Amino acid sequence: MITVLKQGTTVEQRDQLIKWFEDQGLRVHVSVGEYQTVLGLIGDTTKVDTDMLELLDIVDFVKRITEPFKNANRKFHPEDTVIDVGGAKIGGGNFAVIAGPCSVETEEQITEVARRVKAAGATMLRGGAFKPRTSPYDFQGLKADGIELLVKAKKETGLPIVTEIMNANHLPLFEDVDVIQVGARNMQNFELLKELGKTKKTILLKRGLANTFKELLMSAEYIMSEGNENVILCERGIRTFETYTRNTLDLSAVCALHELTHLPVVVDPSHATGRADYVKPMAMAATACGADGIMIEVHNNPAKALCDGAQSVTPDQFDDIMKRIKTIREVI
Amino acid sequence: MITVLKQGTTVEQRDQLIKWFEDQGLRVHVSVGEYQTVLGLIGDTTKVDTDMLELLDIVDFVKRITEPFKNANRKFHPEDTVIDVGGAKIGGGNFAVIAGPCSVETEEQITEVARRVKAAGATMLRGGAFKPRTSPYDFQGLKADGIELLVKAKKETGLPIVTEIMNANHLPLFEDVDVIQVGARNMQNFELLKELGKTKKTILLKRGLANTFKELLMSAEYIMSEGNENVILCERGIRTFETYTRNTLDLSAVCALHELTHLPVVVDPSHATGRADYVKPMAMAATACGADGIMIEVHNNPAKALCDGAQSVTPDQFDDIMKRIKTIREVI
Amino acid sequence: MITVLKQGTTVEQRDQLIKWFEDQGLRVHVSVGEYQTVLGLIGDTTKVDTDMLELLDIVDFVKRITEPFKNANRKFHPEDTVIDVGGAKIGGGNFAVIAGPCSVETEEQITEVARRVKAAGATMLRGGAFKPRTSPYDFQGLKADGIELLVKAKKETGLPIVTEIMNANHLPLFEDVDVIQVGARNMQNFELLKELGKTKKTILLKRGLANTFKELLMSAEYIMSEGNENVILCERGIRTFETYTRNTLDLSAVCALHELTHLPVVVDPSHATGRADYVKPMAMAATACGADGIMIEVHNNPAKALCDGAQSVTPDQFDDIMKRIKTIREVI
Amino acid sequence: MITVLKQGTTVEQRDQLIKWFEDQGLRVHVSVGEYQTVLGLIGDTTKVDTDMLELLDIVDFVKRITEPFKNANRKFHPEDTVIDVGGAKIGGGNFAVIAGPCSVETEEQITEVARRVKAAGATMLRGGAFKPRTSPYDFQGLKADGIELLVKAKKETGLPIVTEIMNANHLPLFEDVDVIQVGARNMQNFELLKELGKTKKTILLKRGLANTFKELLMSAEYIMSEGNENVILCERGIRTFETYTRNTLDLSAVCALHELTHLPVVVDPSHATGRADYVKPMAMAATACGADGIMIEVHNNPAKALCDGAQSVTPDQFDDIMKRIKTIREVI
Repeated sequence: MITVLKQGTTVEQRDQLIKWFEDQGLRVHVSVGEYQTVLGLIGDTTKVDTDMLELLDIVDFVKRITEPFKNANRKFHPEDTVIDVGGAKIGGGNFAVIAGPCSVETEEQITEVARRVKAAGATMLRGGAFKPRTSPYDFQGLKADGIELLVKAKKETGLPIVTEIMNANHLPLFEDVDVIQVGARNMQNFELLKELGKTKKTILLKRGLANTFKELLMSAEYIMSEGNENVILCERGIRTFETYTRNTLDLSAVCALHELTHLPVVVDPSHATGRADYVKPMAMAATACGADGIMIEVHNNPAKALCDGAQSVTPDQFDDIMKRIKTIREVI
Repeated sequence: MITVLKQGTTVEQRDQLIKWFEDQGLRVHVSVGEYQTVLGLIGDTTKVDTDMLELLDIVDFVKRITEPFKNANRKFHPEDTVIDVGGAKIGGGNFAVIAGPCSVETEEQITEVARRVKAAGATMLRGGAFKPRTSPYDFQGLKADGIELLVKAKKETGLPIVTEIMNANHLPLFEDVDVIQVGARNMQNFELLKELGKTKKTILLKRGLANTFKELLMSAEYIMSEGNENVILCERGIRTFETYTRNTLDLSAVCALHELTHLPVVVDPSHATGRADYVKPMAMAATACGADGIMIEVHNNPAKALCDGAQSVTPDQFDDIMKRIKTIREVI
Repeated sequence: MITVLKQGTTVEQRDQLIKWFEDQGLRVHVSVGEYQTVLGLIGDTTKVDTDMLELLDIVDFVKRITEPFKNANRKFHPEDTVIDVGGAKIGGGNFAVIAGPCSVETEEQITEVARRVKAAGATMLRGGAFKPRTSPYDFQGLKADGIELLVKAKKETGLPIVTEIMNANHLPLFEDVDVIQVGARNMQNFELLKELGKTKKTILLKRGLANTFKELLMSAEYIMSEGNENVILCERGIRTFETYTRNTLDLSAVCALHELTHLPVVVDPSHATGRADYVKPMAMAATACGADGIMIEVHNNPAKALCDGAQSVTPDQFDDIMKRIKTIREVI
Repeated sequence: MITVLKQGTTVEQRDQLIKWFEDQGLRVHVSVGEYQTVLGLIGDTTKVDTDMLELLDIVDFVKRITEPFKNANRKFHPEDTVIDVGGAKIGGGNFAVIAGPCSVETEEQITEVARRVKAAGATMLRGGAFKPRTSPYDFQGLKADGIELLVKAKKETGLPIVTEIMNANHLPLFEDVDVIQVGARNMQNFELLKELGKTKKTILLKRGLANTFKELLMSAEYIMSEGNENVILCERGIRTFETYTRNTLDLSAVCALHELTHLPVVVDPSHATGRADYVKPMAMAATACGADGIMIEVHNNPAKALCDGAQSVTPDQFDDIMKRIKTIREVI
């Protein structure tokens, strides 16, 4: 960690600060420049509160050299994490395909979609039971009933299931769920993350619409620091000035996260683009750049989907996407 | 609501869609252009799911004319809402000054700050007990103890208190709290919003870092549609490409929200800028453009603040800010 | 085009506006809703100034249905444009690989790089002679001498050359240049675009750091409306809140632009990411999602590059990238 | 300047780099941490190319401590610059009000507006003769004729005139213009900036839609390093995800630029918001937070304005704005 002092800081003030750092077990290297003095801090700076430090009158700015995430950090854990989700592996060369409808609607719908995506090669089934919607007047999901229908489809097809949680109080309902998803809007719902950290479930953590890679990793750290190391990260598009697509899919997240962390990274082209016809090319791109999996909305009757329908592909289209994905997987 | 059909839509397809709209009690005006057909929908379109509509093969795009928020909408409630918080009014010409430390630390600290800000003219006391922090390793607040200390300061000074909630399960601890704050990261924690809608507490709802005015109002609608109409909106800076300031304070939010809604709007220059020396000019600007209140971090010993300290002003600086604010209030 | 009138507009005011539209040769469909009236304009609205329209007291907002670009619009020109650049075709299934150093430095450097990238399969040689730099104190390129060196490398290898222009007055120097590049910072330098529209050179137009797809197409329209239809579009990353990568590569631009226009679209992963190690995965992703070409910085001694060096790959690394690109091209 | 080396850098590699720095006249302080080594560079680092440095295999990242702008830097020039524009001073406590129509249309229009804004207290007259428009089909300004009309209005009223340049070749037409404006889209048209640096005209440099404060200052540096120190900076809104306002006015730019530079800073609320009814509150806010001036579009018949009309206020509204501005100026 680097602490840059302001012009005009007295030697006395500087030495006081150095002493304060040393009292916390850090070593301090001093480098005196023409206009500013730089303190290099050596030791475990994870728990130094940089916001607090920047408050001091004499401090110009603080810059971390080592990131404050530990459990998620590849530096301290160089090998890829491989997570086994009911037999479907992800990470370390294992590719996951998570497919299913935006919302669970009926037993026929979810079972039919499950059968079709399994036949095409999907390794997990997704489906929304609790739905975060911008408007209180929009459909909020079938809730507990939706999870029950997912569990039926799991029994029917053997596919592990992935579904979103919005409230830690609902955890008992998720007992038979294999992967619990945390949506983009809850990426920094720290209370929820802590509760999920106390479970042994695999957590699929989506990047927030305006969150950096490092913030995503700090949120993973909330889960991991409570003891749950089964975290899958998900890039699902960020909010930018461009409004032609719903969000801007940031595929360099795959490279950056693979560099920064050992956790698996999946890409969700459905939510990112908001357009069924962009899902195939973006899924192919995600596969080509090394994602550990993709997450695709598939609906057996897109025109009747109760929410986010615009981004669903049909099972036939999904078959086609899977063929392309497999070919690309083979050549990379 | 406008629904624009794609080129190539057949008359039969168009008529099917029109029938579907009419079945939902809407009237439809058809306007046939050279390249596209536009359907104008008349009636209560609040509950039409535009995402779902855009999924249809024949639909190019959908545009709402009337916003889907009702309770918060100035169109249906032209007069300013005035909220009375333990005697301190806000809205409709009543200006609120909410001041206090980022985090509650000790009884001495919070009581001393409360006395000082009251003397300077603050109308409410703020202080964080539950703190949302990006890192699990940073200070998370005194929690229940912090609320207790706030309540003591309230008894001591008579100032109503404002503090943040992060988990609806903590609601019982907020019994003596006058205004419950929802932080930017929880602006779309819909489960929390719904629970707060069932209380009668005044809610201070902060705009998310990447949320539009309309999304902020939809979140207010979550609270209001459950029966709680006491909502104060808060602009606290948005995330942009500029990193010199912590966030970018968007003061046009004051104009835009006053146009769109009847709810009071306060501005928090402390979190937006992240710099104590920018708080005064930004507080003056917020007052000048017609905000219904400001929210300022004040700390009696900024250098020792446990979090977000960088943005705290001292009680002496706050006195000075208050003088300026009062003068500006008089002339506008 | 849709014009939505404000609540409270009188019938007289409305009829005046309708007359004004009709005087401009447009037909108007009126749809009266509960809160607002919508006018649907039919005819050639390309030259209607929407900014001006929105100024009127009675107008709430205006929304275009058909985009105001004509020459670049796929609606009016459904087939892909194929551009022949000195024998190297791009568009309509023809894939271009544009490679070379950020800056031309010496004859040895540019000729050696040209030979290497040609051997690996590149179809055009790029190299900067005029360099737009944020700081006036940074290296600004070899200018005319740089172009001369590029022309030598072209003679040597037969590769058509691509280089950036910053000033229309320099056009005479570009006589032997095959493709003239307009950089992101000049995407809306309309004076430059108009001058380039008067030439017959192929123009490679880069998307601005904060420009939408539609603005990019309007800039292409500036060139095309002057008579030059040889425009290649280039996605090179946009500016977002994420600072870990230099910019955020927006690969959905490939899908969106292919939908909106018939012009070829290339992707520049070098500038977008600013990191040599991200170039390969991002080039593979760009190829997989259907780009018409990629543009890659290659330097025979990256450590000595005079500018933007951080993003250069070596000729050996480029060989490897080309192998991957070819395999992906074969399977898609 | 700080250079952080990657893990795994050998002592030999490190020493080579240190030698390279020393050869450029810099002193180097070495601080060896647990995971990384930090080099602190002392001396004149203005001309060190950080992009190039980051290219080196052994370099993790580089961070400047002192900004690479010199002429514009308050550190080296602590007093406010005061610019005298034909008798109208700006900076160092002198407040400028620049008002006039978006586009010059007729002699009657510009003269009438000039008289009205002068009577209300404006200190300079603005009007567009060359207009940058997103679409080639929109009105591009009266060009040379527009400047002639401005000069007439100047003679009539004595107000110095401000108008935009888009092409350095047009400079001869600007002989009688007092302040030459560089628009947001040309903020990084470095060729234009260099030419303007060779004149003695006052330059009003607008912040680009996606440019940081520091980039704005580097662009000012392009002008100043050529010998022209008469630069006024202008905040006019940045592009963000929020689309309700045309752009997001970033008033903290006033604070930040006053901290970083000695140059005067004006605010243009007209272009930032794109709405006439937001101009007054935002002009008041800009004044309250210490801007050195404001720039407001005023049109004597807004409904007929040829461009950007939506954001124009009438002379009567401008009178009212000026009264508020004066009162606020008195109290701050």
